[in-house]
Amino acid sequence: MRDAGAPALRILGTGCHHPAHRVASTDFDTRLGLPPGSSEAATGVTERGVAADDETASAMAARAAEAALHAAGLDGRDLDAIVSTCAVMEQPIPCQAALVQRALGLGASGIPAFDLNATCLGFLVALDLVAAAIATGRWRRVLVVASEVPSRGLRADDPMTAPLFGDGAAAAVLGAAEAGDASALLAWRMETRADHAEACRIRGGGTRIAPGDPRNDDRDAYRFEMDGPATFRAAGRHMPRLLAQLLDTAGLALGDIDCVVPHQASGGGLDRIVRALRLPDARTVRILGRHGNQVAASLPHALHHAIDSGRLQRGQTCLLLGTGAGLSLGGAVLRY
Amino acid sequence: MRDAGAPALRILGTGCHHPAHRVASTDFDTRLGLPPGSSEAATGVTERGVAADDETASAMAARAAEAALHAAGLDGRDLDAIVSTCAVMEQPIPCQAALVQRALGLGASGIPAFDLNATCLGFLVALDLVAAAIATGRWRRVLVVASEVPSRGLRADDPMTAPLFGDGAAAAVLGAAEAGDASALLAWRMETRADHAEACRIRGGGTRIAPGDPRNDDRDAYRFEMDGPATFRAAGRHMPRLLAQLLDTAGLALGDIDCVVPHQASGGGLDRIVRALRLPDARTVRILGRHGNQVAASLPHALHHAIDSGRLQRGQTCLLLGTGAGLSLGGAVLRY
Repeated sequence: MRDAGAPALRILGTGCHHPAHRVASTDFDTRLGLPPGSSEAATGVTERGVAADDETASAMAARAAEAALHAAGLDGRDLDAIVSTCAVMEQPIPCQAALVQRALGLGASGIPAFDLNATCLGFLVALDLVAAAIATGRWRRVLVVASEVPSRGLRADDPMTAPLFGDGAAAAVLGAAEAGDASALLAWRMETRADHAEACRIRGGGTRIAPGDPRNDDRDAYRFEMDGPATFRAAGRHMPRLLAQLLDTAGLALGDIDCVVPHQASGGGLDRIVRALRLPDARTVRILGRHGNQVAASLPHALHHAIDSGRLQRGQTCLLLGTGAGLSLGGAVLRY
Repeated sequence: MRDAGAPALRILGTGCHHPAHRVASTDFDTRLGLPPGSSEAATGVTERGVAADDETASAMAARAAEAALHAAGLDGRDLDAIVSTCAVMEQPIPCQAALVQRALGLGASGIPAFDLNATCLGFLVALDLVAAAIATGRWRRVLVVASEVPSRGLRADDPMTAPLFGDGAAAAVLGAAEAGDASALLAWRMETRADHAEACRIRGGGTRIAPGDPRNDDRDAYRFEMDGPATFRAAGRHMPRLLAQLLDTAGLALGDIDCVVPHQASGGGLDRIVRALRLPDARTVRILGRHGNQVAASLPHALHHAIDSGRLQRGQTCLLLGTGAGLSLGGAVLRY
């Protein structure tokens, strides 16, 4: 794989949205019959948003997208494309981005809408492909949005996953950097190792274990299953090299990175990645405690938090990094 | 939206795969209690492949991909990325492309794998984004594969949809055109009009009507629903302009197009689009009768058929065109 040049990509604006209803991890302790503090200790999550029954992923996505458009000083009609990057869709057909387009009141606009899916790394894939499409002049301004409702796909009796995830949405509007603007995608890399495809999965709900078929009425088939240790091991084996390659492509040392935005996988996962890669703890963004793992919305939400809190300023460098089901590993270096 | 230049894109090889088990439309007549010939008259489909219980989308995808790699004279390890473009996945997590990577025996390769989803138009979206990623130098050779098993998501009692679809997979390996090779993506266009999002849908199976939730046990929620006339009307309203824009960008007249490859939506849909757009019937590819509507696998399979049968030769021009749930309309002009 050749390393490309550095596309002149600018993050024009970011935003996020979360359900009003919040659930504390102590509530999970009670439900699971565990001593208070157990769920937080196992996951690193203190509280998270949980969508109401009538709260859809597309509605949450539209709120996050409106915030990102506002931050960018743009109207929805300025967009050349709408890309949804969620892992699990609101419904199988049509694609999620079409439902987001409608929720934004743009259902007659004609703006092309499609989905990208790399489970937790969808935002990373979108960043690179959209940067290429902007570099070739196909598009000027693209909305990338992820909205997830993992609360609907968890086993209530699993103490490792039930309290780990949170519902939420995050969005970014991407555009070209104008002359004199140093904003760029300095490096990008992704690796998929599907020998570990069973490490994080939802077996049922697609065409293999099709819902609605009386032979497929085992409810657990539709729930998320995770082998955390297998994921940690694969990430530990391959991530140091991937990070070194990213920094080499960007022409930077780890000490040159102003802000590290990791996927908010879990408290243990974040601790391990910080330790294994010797990431600068004080410059590493953590939003897991208040929001849980928001699947594909985690990375763009953590990036939004870095920007919104002033931890990532224009001209500074940012390292995005994460693992996703597949198993995939990926990262990017941006000049914001 | 700006029109980009013409990326020097070459289709290096194509392939397809279908289940061994084939079902004739007269079988549907019998099941539905209709006079012989009714199902074929309603859909334009004579027979189609139907996957066996243990036949997965990823296994079919791998066979189609192997055929495309063989045609391209490449090995799987030569690929820089694997992109799955199916509408409905084999399972919700991980993404379909990871399962295809594993089915190809490339599970330890690290080749990045992710999904693009624009329902029936996924191949079109992949064509454009991969062309951009090739133009910027990110990738040199990319597998784009679609594999669908619609037979698992249909209402057996619906005479309009039950006999319309077929299971199958198709793949293309995309690469850069070398100097002196005129192969290019001459024009590309897509429009999404989600005001028509209800025209083609599967309501259940995602996070809104989550499978496994006892409140969501209505089996019909997990089945495809189609308002054919609404789709025809929207396509009829917008497709003539979209085609004119495509030809204008490509600098070609309709008479200059050597081969027309439409999405194989339905017999009636194909007749209407040929009539409304005055497409040259003799140069328009139809594989619907033998294979049914294979959702996102239809367009790449029809393209494969055009190439494999010699109807599309190197240096000739090809118009790809179609509609998809969303509602989206799209097209591309290629010099093959």
